[in-house]
Amino acid sequence: MSGVVAGIDIGGTNAVLGLCDKNGTVLCETALKTNDYPEFESFVNAASKQISQMLEKTGANLLGIGIGAPNANYSRGTIEHAVNLPWGGGIIPIAEKFKEKLGVEVKITNDANATAVGEKVFGGAKNTDNFVVLTLGTGLGGGIFVNGQLLYGHSGFAGEIGHILLVPNGRTCGCGQKGCAEAYVSATGICRTAFELLAEHREDSCLRKFSYNDLTSKIIAESAKNGDKIALRAFEKTAEYLGRVIADSVAVLSPQKFFLFGGLANAGDILLAPAKVFAKSFVLENMRESFDVEISQIPEANAAVLGAAALIWEKL
Amino acid sequence: MSGVVAGIDIGGTNAVLGLCDKNGTVLCETALKTNDYPEFESFVNAASKQISQMLEKTGANLLGIGIGAPNANYSRGTIEHAVNLPWGGGIIPIAEKFKEKLGVEVKITNDANATAVGEKVFGGAKNTDNFVVLTLGTGLGGGIFVNGQLLYGHSGFAGEIGHILLVPNGRTCGCGQKGCAEAYVSATGICRTAFELLAEHREDSCLRKFSYNDLTSKIIAESAKNGDKIALRAFEKTAEYLGRVIADSVAVLSPQKFFLFGGLANAGDILLAPAKVFAKSFVLENMRESFDVEISQIPEANAAVLGAAALIWEKL
Repeated sequence: MSGVVAGIDIGGTNAVLGLCDKNGTVLCETALKTNDYPEFESFVNAASKQISQMLEKTGANLLGIGIGAPNANYSRGTIEHAVNLPWGGGIIPIAEKFKEKLGVEVKITNDANATAVGEKVFGGAKNTDNFVVLTLGTGLGGGIFVNGQLLYGHSGFAGEIGHILLVPNGRTCGCGQKGCAEAYVSATGICRTAFELLAEHREDSCLRKFSYNDLTSKIIAESAKNGDKIALRAFEKTAEYLGRVIADSVAVLSPQKFFLFGGLANAGDILLAPAKVFAKSFVLENMRESFDVEISQIPEANAAVLGAAALIWEKL
Repeated sequence: MSGVVAGIDIGGTNAVLGLCDKNGTVLCETALKTNDYPEFESFVNAASKQISQMLEKTGANLLGIGIGAPNANYSRGTIEHAVNLPWGGGIIPIAEKFKEKLGVEVKITNDANATAVGEKVFGGAKNTDNFVVLTLGTGLGGGIFVNGQLLYGHSGFAGEIGHILLVPNGRTCGCGQKGCAEAYVSATGICRTAFELLAEHREDSCLRKFSYNDLTSKIIAESAKNGDKIALRAFEKTAEYLGRVIADSVAVLSPQKFFLFGGLANAGDILLAPAKVFAKSFVLENMRESFDVEISQIPEANAAVLGAAALIWEKL
């Protein structure tokens, strides 16, 4: 009977669950609607039931559970004040509850950290001890490895690269501050940049037919690949913003590699190539050759489960 | 015969040398004019001679040599491309040379890192594993401890907090970029801020009688304490800039404490108190109570020797 780890990625809409073996193969995967479970206990019960069923189906032996979730506290095993989760108001002892249910070790961290651990265990960071994963989704998350260890800092919440100041008195951020990197370097951020450009310039663009609610980073990427000038300019500006985030991280942390992950990173070279050029031009001269920027090597389809499961595989 | 460590702080003008015991007491101290030694070998010879004389005088036993120097490479024991040193052009194997001369272990790091190690071994960071020292002198240096270890990063040059971007397209920095934190948050930076304010406003100020060459952060601090409005405003703006630097560092690193060191930090509460308020207002809400900002507890008179010597005492 082979050993597997259950990976659970908890988001505001869906929770994805799966079993992952030591090679990073996801044997099976399922999902729950987070909002179907107004009580946290009912969520744990339903998730545990799904895991048990998957174990039965595969005949595998459960070695542990890794969880990626917003506002996760690694050292306490809790989810704290996660306003986007239906039961996220207070301090939720989720690791303890899963351990009670399934009798195995449980580790929890936030999704960007889980992605970084996934990159270390199963992705492009296997041979790198100092690297940063940037998750460019709805927001901008950061997972930082220093000397082969995930950086938690004193509070347990280090790695919030999305909330460094990028533009003084800039765009309002979801956190309540103004000008955070996340408001520029994310799938949402590039849409805001595109809308700014549509307002600023008069040239024709296929983006003019989309409402703010309908526009996505994917549409902008496709338009840019078709030569739409506003879309191209939106990527160029976003690459410059991303270059600044990378350069600031190089100054402070001096990682060997950056891995870009998530919706906006899927745009590929149209973002990566200019971001790398901008980043290299912004850093101190003696650090210019010290780092590289790549697209994440974790397959996106299973990334959520893989990253969460890696939290346990890393220790085994 | 008691054991001592020699601390050497190499600057563009002076090199300070001293002997330091395990309690952080500097037994004796002397200095050399860096420019008197156009050849690096002659500098090592002169410094070694001084150290030998001090050892003879005190009757102490040399356990090792710690060196703080610009562009120091800790892992290679070298000074690399330090344009401010007379013999700093290439790659200088300084650790090896001192070891040949005096036959003990030699460690080298840059001055901000040495200050951080000094804070950890002899100062206010004895009980803290995650902290940041900011040296506010001519420039802005950073020394970062993560999990009880100095952060070197992949290149060995991590901690360059002075070169994060603070103001897009802002003031020219010594490094050639624009808007670096160092151009605002340093003894030089506050002078530049004062000159901006003198140009912007019309009110009387005792700072109006100083040339740019003559103005110092000490003069601005004294004027502010006497109620000069331009000087007070210069400190307020500098505190806001410093607050942003601290807030960005909290987002990425989440240290427990910041220690302010150096010329501008000597201004004390007139800078510290508002910087703390600004920093707390800029960080994510859940991190607001996770950190504190203090003035360094290393006595400034012996700081250079203490910090350098701590590099060895830390290991003993």
